Order: sequence, then C-alpha cells, then structure tokens
Amino acid sequence: MGKYSGTKNSVIFFAGAFTSLTLIWSYFLFFSASSNFAITGLLHDKEPVKKCSGLDMQFDPPEPGFYDDPDLSYSIERSITNWDEKRYQWIESHPSFKPGLENRIVMVTGSQSSPCKNPIGDHLLLRCFKNKVDYARIHGHDIFYSNALLHQKMNSYWAKLPVVKAAMLVHPEAEWIWWVDSDAIFTDMEFKPPLHRYRHHNLVVHGWPNIIYDTQSWTALNAGVFLIRNCQWSMEFIDTWKSMGPVSPDYKKWGPIQRSIFKDKLFPESDDQTALIYLLYKHKELYYPKIYLEAEYYFQGYWIGVVGGFANVTERYLEMERQDDTLRRRHAEKVSERYGAFREERFLKGEFGGRDSRRRAFVTHFTGCQPCSGDHNPIYHGDTCWNEMIRALNFADNQVMRVYGYVHSDLSKTSPLQPLPFDYPNDPW
Amino acid sequence: MGKYSGTKNSVIFFAGAFTSLTLIWSYFLFFSASSNFAITGLLHDKEPVKKCSGLDMQFDPPEPGFYDDPDLSYSIERSITNWDEKRYQWIESHPSFKPGLENRIVMVTGSQSSPCKNPIGDHLLLRCFKNKVDYARIHGHDIFYSNALLHQKMNSYWAKLPVVKAAMLVHPEAEWIWWVDSDAIFTDMEFKPPLHRYRHHNLVVHGWPNIIYDTQSWTALNAGVFLIRNCQWSMEFIDTWKSMGPVSPDYKKWGPIQRSIFKDKLFPESDDQTALIYLLYKHKELYYPKIYLEAEYYFQGYWIGVVGGFANVTERYLEMERQDDTLRRRHAEKVSERYGAFREERFLKGEFGGRDSRRRAFVTHFTGCQPCSGDHNPIYHGDTCWNEMIRALNFADNQVMRVYGYVHSDLSKTSPLQPLPFDYPNDPW
Repeated sequence: MGKYSGTKNSVIFFAGAFTSLTLIWSYFLFFSASSNFAITGLLHDKEPVKKCSGLDMQFDPPEPGFYDDPDLSYSIERSITNWDEKRYQWIESHPSFKPGLENRIVMVTGSQSSPCKNPIGDHLLLRCFKNKVDYARIHGHDIFYSNALLHQKMNSYWAKLPVVKAAMLVHPEAEWIWWVDSDAIFTDMEFKPPLHRYRHHNLVVHGWPNIIYDTQSWTALNAGVFLIRNCQWSMEFIDTWKSMGPVSPDYKKWGPIQRSIFKDKLFPESDDQTALIYLLYKHKELYYPKIYLEAEYYFQGYWIGVVGGFANVTERYLEMERQDDTLRRRHAEKVSERYGAFREERFLKGEFGGRDSRRRAFVTHFTGCQPCSGDHNPIYHGDTCWNEMIRALNFADNQVMRVYGYVHSDLSKTSPLQPLPFDYPNDPW
Repeated sequence: MGKYSGTKNSVIFFAGAFTSLTLIWSYFLFFSASSNFAITGLLHDKEPVKKCSGLDMQFDPPEPGFYDDPDLSYSIERSITNWDEKRYQWIESHPSFKPGLENRIVMVTGSQSSPCKNPIGDHLLLRCFKNKVDYARIHGHDIFYSNALLHQKMNSYWAKLPVVKAAMLVHPEAEWIWWVDSDAIFTDMEFKPPLHRYRHHNLVVHGWPNIIYDTQSWTALNAGVFLIRNCQWSMEFIDTWKSMGPVSPDYKKWGPIQRSIFKDKLFPESDDQTALIYLLYKHKELYYPKIYLEAEYYFQGYWIGVVGGFANVTERYLEMERQDDTLRRRHAEKVSERYGAFREERFLKGEFGGRDSRRRAFVTHFTGCQPCSGDHNPIYHGDTCWNEMIRALNFADNQVMRVYGYVHSDLSKTSPLQPLPFDYPNDPW
C-alpha cells in the first residue's frame, strides 16, 4: 500500500474540514469584488514574499563585475582566466541565486540555421525540442536552443563548443551546462541525473574506460550528451578540446593522428568525439580524474538497444502503478518530481538503467539517423529511424500528457490523444 | 549619464577590494580539494537555503485535494465547479508556490501533429518555438507546447481551448495561462505585459470595442494571443466559448449566425475568433467588464504593420544605448529584466507601442501567412511571408544573442553570428 492510501483516517477528517472551509470560502467570495481576487488577495498579509520568491531577476548591482571587464570575451578563440573567482563574485553579489546553486542546470541544444534536407527533418527537430522543453519544465531547468553558428569555422559537431562556452559565461547562476544533441530524446521524464555522484568531477559523458584504454575505439564514449561543470577547469578543457577543431591552425593534422590510434573512426577529419577520447587516452592522469564516464544507466542510450523494449517497459511501469496508488494519484505538474522520487524509492532502488533493466532508458539517442540531413547510416532503413523517433517521442510524451489527463494509446499515433480514466491504470478502459 | 557611470568612485574603491579578495580567494582555492567546491562549498554555512530556494517541487501532501476527486475531468466536454476554492486549497497546501503567485504565467502554444505541407513550414515552427522559449526563459515563465489534439472534434483554431483548459487544471500555481499562436513571434524580448492593468479582468486580447459594437467586424479582435486568468470565471467562459465549436451539437448553426452579424467573416463554419466577438457583442454587460481589449501596445500586432519598421526601430534602440551606458552593460541573462525595466523607465515611459511609436512591437503575428500549410492569404506573396518571418525571428534573436555576445548583422541572415565588441554600440566595428 502506498503512503497516500495509508492516510484514510485523515481523509475522512479532511473531507469534513474541507466542506466547512468551502462554505466559509463561498461566503467570502460573495463579498469579494471579483473571484480573481480570491487567491491573489491572500498574499498581501503574508510576509517575506518578495524576499523569498526565489530568484531576483530584476537586481544587478552597479558595482563592476567580470562582465564590465573589456578583456573578457565570449569567443571560443579567447581564454577565460580565474573563472571560479569571477563566478563566485557574481554569486556573492546576487545572493538570491545561492539557494539551489549546486544543482542548477542550464540545458543547451541546437540545430542548423536552415531548413532540413530531409522532408520530415524539421518536424522531428521540432518534436525533439518539445521533448527537451517538457523535461526541462518538469525539473525546473532553463533551456537554450542555438540555431546559428557562433564561430563560422566551428560547424557541424564542433558547433556545440562555442555555444557551451558562451552559455557558461552568460549563466553564472548555473553549476552545470547540459549539452543534449537535437536527436537525443528524453525517454524517462521522471529520472534525474545523480549529480551527487559527479561531485568530484567536472565533465560527465556516457562511456567505458576499458574501450578507451584497451580497445581504442572512437565509440568508447558519446559526446552528443554531456554535463559540464561551470568552472575554470571546464573553460580550460574546452580550450584544449577546441584546439583539435576547425578553429585551430593544426586542425588538418589532428584527423590522421586520431585515426592512427582509433582505427574505427569513420571520417578522416578531426571530430569532437574522437578528440575527447584522445585527450582521455593521451593524458589519462590529467583528465580521467575529472571526467566521469557514466555507463550505469542510459545517460544517453543507443536507440537500437532501446526502442524494441518500449512495450515491455510500459507494461512494467503500469504494473508498478497498479501496485501502488500513490503512483496513480493525479497531481499538479509542478510536483511531478515528488512522484518520480517515490517510484525511485519504492520500485527502482539499485536498478541500474542499462539493457534488461526494469528502468526506462533515460535518454534515447538516435545516433546515425541524421534526421535533418536524412543522410542516415546505410545500416539503417531511413523510415525505421523516423518511425522509431516518433515512437520514442510519443513514449516520452505519454509521461508528460498523462499529468494533463491524456495518453497516446498507440505509440505510432501522435494525435488525437485518448482521455485517461480516473485511477488509471486500475480502472478498466 | 546612467546609474552605472554614476559610481565611478566606488569603482576605484572596489577595484582594490576585488584585487585583495582575489588573492585571498586564490589562497583558499589552493587548499580546496577541487576548484568546483569553491562555489558550492560556500552554501553549507548559509542559512535557510532549502526553505528559500523557491518552489518546492518535491512536496505534495497526502491529504486529498481536487485531483483526488473522481468527478474532476480534464475534458473540454465536462464542466469544472468551484475552481477558485479548489485552486485556493491547492495553493494553501503548497505554500512554496505563494510568493509571486499573482504574476505567475504558463505560456501555451502548439501546432499540428504531422509534418507541414509547406517545405519550410516546420523549420519556421521550430524557430517560432525557440523564440517563445527564449522569451519564457528570460522572464521565468513555464512554457508548454501541444502537438496533439486533446479532443478529436476540436481541431484547427478550436484546438487551443481543450489545451488551455487542461493547462489551467494542471497548473494551479499559475495565475495566468498565456495562449500564443505558433505563428506569433515575440519581437520585444524585454517587454512584460502590464498585468496590474488587467487586475480586474480575466481575459486579455488585442482588440477594439468600437469595431465590435459599431462596425461588427470579425477582425475586431485577434484570438490568436490571449491571457486568461486561471479562475472559475474562465472555466465557465471556456465552456460557453466551446459551445459554438465542433464539440457542440449546435456547431452547424453557429457559422450562419456569426456571419449574419459579422458580414466580413471569411469562412462559413463557426470559428473561435468570431465566437469570442459574438459573445462580447451579444452579452456585453456580462462579458465586457471582464474582458480587456488591449490596443495601447502590440499585445499582438499584425505583421504587415510591423516588419517594415525593423530597421528604424533598431536604430532608435541603438540610439538609447549610445545615450546611456547602463544599456550597454553586459550582464547575466538571468538579470536581463533589470535592464528592460531600466530602458522602460528611462526612455519608454508613456510610449504606447502602436504604429509610429518609439517602442518595438511586442508580438508580431503572421496572420494570414499559414506557414505550416503554406496556404497563405492570396493577398500576400508566400515568399514575403517566409522571408519576413525569418527577419522577425532574427530581429528578436538579436535581443537574445546580444547577451551571449553575438548579433545577426543582417536580419535576413541567420548564421553565422557576428561577435559584438565591448561597449557596443559605442565602439566602432
């Protein structure tokens, strides 16, 4: 039995209390000029409303900070020094941003500035963006979408580095910047990355150390989704990382060097992912202690290993909901995290989210599908890519729309939605 | 001279203070296990961090609230009663949501569930969504995108009503739901709607009473952008409004009735906009007191009257920035509102944002362009629609990207962005 059903007595008591409350309230309403004062009117006798209303977005002290330093540049070509002190100083002068600082995340994603070659490409990008906005809203993260190059030379897979660097500078209130490729879809809207696990690290990617150090494969990690701490170490790491990119005079030489070590690397030019693996491989003592290679759950999961399991995992999650009425309880979207935490505690403890886990894949990444260009890896049939992306999007959207009272009864069918009966999935359809 | 330049003395003093701070700080860093503790480590001796970190998204009391009532339905076909009491009760049992309640907005937008017929359509929808997400992030609003019908019959321009109703129920923490059509673009990222002006009203739309009551035109207001208060009045209004829609048994009869009064109405079927005007026209005493027809600024502006002015308005705003260094000051995006408020106070007081105003159009609505279907009003050339939408998007994006250190130097060119010099627009390029 869930916590909620454990309070039957208080339910009865409350029912009575609520009735009388309603009577008094209706009376009050009768005399209030307009019902819309009913709620907002309450606040005036309440205390530290302003002081405590979260972030003070209208306050920026006149005393100069790092933004007032003419030598500070947002460009990927210029280095940032003493960022920890600068960021610390900003936070000290903007105290309303201190609460929750350790866990504050700004998500960053993006895509090309022109229409996609693939006729369904922009539709898929739009829905992938909606999916990220849904996840960000449910968990209170800010999200920024970039659809223009910040540096002409830093294009395709290198475009993210100038954006991530600029986002770090413009969001000193955020401890983490979370880059998520446009073709990566959140398929567990409840799950939160275990930030405490990364407290001694500054960069988190999905990967496997043995494949870097023993096998030397360019797929030892995936650079399409990463958490990077907003600190000086990261600024310097991005400087080093980008020095293997098109902005560097040595760009041409890096492709062959990467390929000489990582033999399975696909394209001849230096790419951001192989560059990252190269740094971990060549300078293990320097970087490995600060880069967390996450493989215990799908920090990002290869779609081929995930999409086949949507039906089973849906059934497993419905089974949890049949077992515990707390999970069947309707609620405001703003408190969805409470139910995610409850499911975690009651059903998913110690469940690593890999293959064959009871846990849903957190992020399903359509690597190789190239939805925008449509130039997918020849080993996949294009339609398989697009159809599975739609199914993944609707699988995720079911977790969102359920709170709004609706569900996609068929993952391949986006619209119309089906209304959910009360106490679903216990009630028969 | 601006506030900032008025603090030259404190600048000198602060410079010294900052240097010594830096020394002490570097020393501290030297002994801290890892630089990423430098900032987060601070918080542990600070006080009511948890209590004051804004919204408690993990708390939902076990006592039953309205969500636990089996008779409460999210469907557009079922009515909601006593919503003010229910919402009040929710807020009372979730006190962390009280601060800032009066001004809390959830923005809602959306588009069709399938790819657009117009080849550039989904690209434009993606960029229009980014534009709304940018505005929402800068002002701390939540945003929800709907791309599926909640009720099969309530399609096209009627689809918004079921979504808005569901959003009201799922977001009791929000005082306002702000519907914005997919083809409406925020072209002033600083401006905030004057909610205090609407404190006695429950619905805000752009419109003109004389055109409703004297001219009887179906364009007397635009229903593509509206603020609706999250209260019982609105629930009942949506019930009445939707009763002229496809979900109603009388749907067929309403088209002719609307056309008999509003002779210029384009299509024969009953539409949401004419339905809204009809209610204001037929039941003035009942609805007009609660519906604010905003025309003092572009709460939503017809694109034809706006896009030609982008060059002039850009120059006017740059001129303000040349005149006052506060507006040239770089800052964190989170405190952008402070600079918007400053510009408002110093330069735009008493400037109504209509045609020929110094003020930028707040929202530019591409009415008649139909970017997704491409079936634009024959009076426009399609390319004009798409090109002007791109210009409007880049005009808005310049206000966003400037904070990230970049600008679109040509409104027709999305990428690459140009880096901005320090103290822009004072420094020469």
